[in-house]
Amino acid sequence: MALSRAPALDVPILSITLESLGGVHGLIHASESARLCAGVPQAAAEFLSSAAAAPSAAERAWLKEPKHTIVPFTDARYPHLLRELHICPIALYVPGNADVLNDPQLSIVGSRNPTPAGSDIAFEFARSLAACGLGITSGLADGIDSAAHRGALAAQGITVAVLGCGADIIYPRNNRTLSEAIRLQGAVISEFPLGTPPRRENFPQRNRIIATLSLGTLVVEAARRSGSLITARLAGDHNRELFAVPGSIHNPLSRGCHELIRQGAKLTETVADILSELDFSAFFASAGHASGGPATPPDIEAGMDKEHKILLDALGFDPADLDVLVVRTGFKPEAVSSMMLILELKGHVQAAPGGRYSRVVRSRR
Amino acid sequence: MALSRAPALDVPILSITLESLGGVHGLIHASESARLCAGVPQAAAEFLSSAAAAPSAAERAWLKEPKHTIVPFTDARYPHLLRELHICPIALYVPGNADVLNDPQLSIVGSRNPTPAGSDIAFEFARSLAACGLGITSGLADGIDSAAHRGALAAQGITVAVLGCGADIIYPRNNRTLSEAIRLQGAVISEFPLGTPPRRENFPQRNRIIATLSLGTLVVEAARRSGSLITARLAGDHNRELFAVPGSIHNPLSRGCHELIRQGAKLTETVADILSELDFSAFFASAGHASGGPATPPDIEAGMDKEHKILLDALGFDPADLDVLVVRTGFKPEAVSSMMLILELKGHVQAAPGGRYSRVVRSRR
Repeated sequence: MALSRAPALDVPILSITLESLGGVHGLIHASESARLCAGVPQAAAEFLSSAAAAPSAAERAWLKEPKHTIVPFTDARYPHLLRELHICPIALYVPGNADVLNDPQLSIVGSRNPTPAGSDIAFEFARSLAACGLGITSGLADGIDSAAHRGALAAQGITVAVLGCGADIIYPRNNRTLSEAIRLQGAVISEFPLGTPPRRENFPQRNRIIATLSLGTLVVEAARRSGSLITARLAGDHNRELFAVPGSIHNPLSRGCHELIRQGAKLTETVADILSELDFSAFFASAGHASGGPATPPDIEAGMDKEHKILLDALGFDPADLDVLVVRTGFKPEAVSSMMLILELKGHVQAAPGGRYSRVVRSRR
Repeated sequence: MALSRAPALDVPILSITLESLGGVHGLIHASESARLCAGVPQAAAEFLSSAAAAPSAAERAWLKEPKHTIVPFTDARYPHLLRELHICPIALYVPGNADVLNDPQLSIVGSRNPTPAGSDIAFEFARSLAACGLGITSGLADGIDSAAHRGALAAQGITVAVLGCGADIIYPRNNRTLSEAIRLQGAVISEFPLGTPPRRENFPQRNRIIATLSLGTLVVEAARRSGSLITARLAGDHNRELFAVPGSIHNPLSRGCHELIRQGAKLTETVADILSELDFSAFFASAGHASGGPATPPDIEAGMDKEHKILLDALGFDPADLDVLVVRTGFKPEAVSSMMLILELKGHVQAAPGGRYSRVVRSRR
């Protein structure tokens, strides 16, 4: 905590000085001159010798709470993808399960004031992808962010919320319940010292964490000039996959997504569009990951009737009604109707309001 | 007419034989042996010697109608872009103004059963582009085709309908009034002999005319497997520009457009997206075109107040309400409201139902 509060320190400097001083313990207990000799900048060395470096009562209390952890960059649980950042955080404050930080993740970001359809899309993508074993990362903001976290929670999946304020501050306040649910089923993370208010300038810094922590970023409804596009640009800068959901040309919140698609982001209609691009089986293998999860979406269709399979493919991953399925498959309405009943009984699809059906994506967890 | 009805004839063969026999008149009056010597295929030579080659009463009557013309490939009014086809039509039956066939055109195609929003988009794009001097080509089908023709007509622009049946047949029947309006303000064209019914197999052939007659093709709402995508593919094969309008991922009729965008079609939100790709000023120059028309969209903004210009740019080419404009410009609501009034009084924008404003795109014609 002291190191993350110290001025003029960063991971490259710390890596060198920790080696010569014998780790964090050595650095904290070294004399100021020993620190300076080891390459610690003057301001940092002075700070570490001052009373301000000692943990505050609030910090001590925070760390004692259950599921509160600080994960320094030297920790094995520190997300290895974050190390690709030129300046990665010295430590992460983590209320929640720090073991999920190295899970394969997709970030879902977008407008704080989405259309209802936009919120639904974020929720449904998050739910389906989380059910496939992909963690869902976002920023705990109103709108798309919250819908994405909720979708992952609904699938009993992993979700990670990255804050632009201290980990002891709930912002926006109305997301307190959501934040608590995320702590229980995933992790909230912040690189900012406790008590840091949600300052405007923190958010681009927070966005770079969202962008690099995940294998890719999906943008759902974003205005042309928005934080979501910054996150997307940062993701692109770090060679992460970029996905964007198109929408009506009359919806100003589709403009940002359309701009991204023009610039090369993958036009994304279904969950399959994302899963086909992300090689997260390789991720599981290379990360030596312990928590498991399917390397590819579960093959629920094995041994299925050929026509049922055609019908399920025609359904895709968005809700559709029988008429649409008749058009898509060319099957007779009676045939589609009876096959959908069988698929529903077998648990492959579920009936949704308005006579629509949606596919059930199962998790192996 | 006889040549367009003759079996086994095509433009490459005709080009050679017409040269050696002294033009169409020479070919028609040559002996059968002279025709064979000049390279006319046996079946065609026999047909031309038979009574079947003589113009029928219906053909004579059709040609006597006002504004009915037949435009053979040897005619200067024959669309020079069609000559890029490996097998181009021997002649075009044209009810309407054959002088517009070499006008720069954009084809707008899509579903026969579009959503209301899809129809509106086709109409509005056609209206705005026609007002900029671009002809609008389509297939006179229900849905997107009809909306596109109507949009061009509403702007007093040029529109060309390409038929999959004889020029004396109205198909679909409910488009009789529209067809008559197109004849008066543009042209209907068909390569099929009079009396040819709208057979299924004619439409891909018709689509290749739509695709090559125009500088580019805009697809508005199309299912994944549809005639519109065939037209788009043909346009791409002939190096025409491809444009597609995105839409909701829940709209099955956006799937075809999204597929085209993934394959490289330009994601199209506004008329400006199309005008910026089409170099139709060059077209006017190279075609030595007589009917005129603006080489670029009229600069209605010359001498305009800077803030008014920002507001007009923020409006774009889709209708928007004041709230949207406030968000887009960052101007105060009162300022936006009073500036829009001034823009309306000056004729730059017009009020639309639902408190929305749309831009007035003026023609120089």
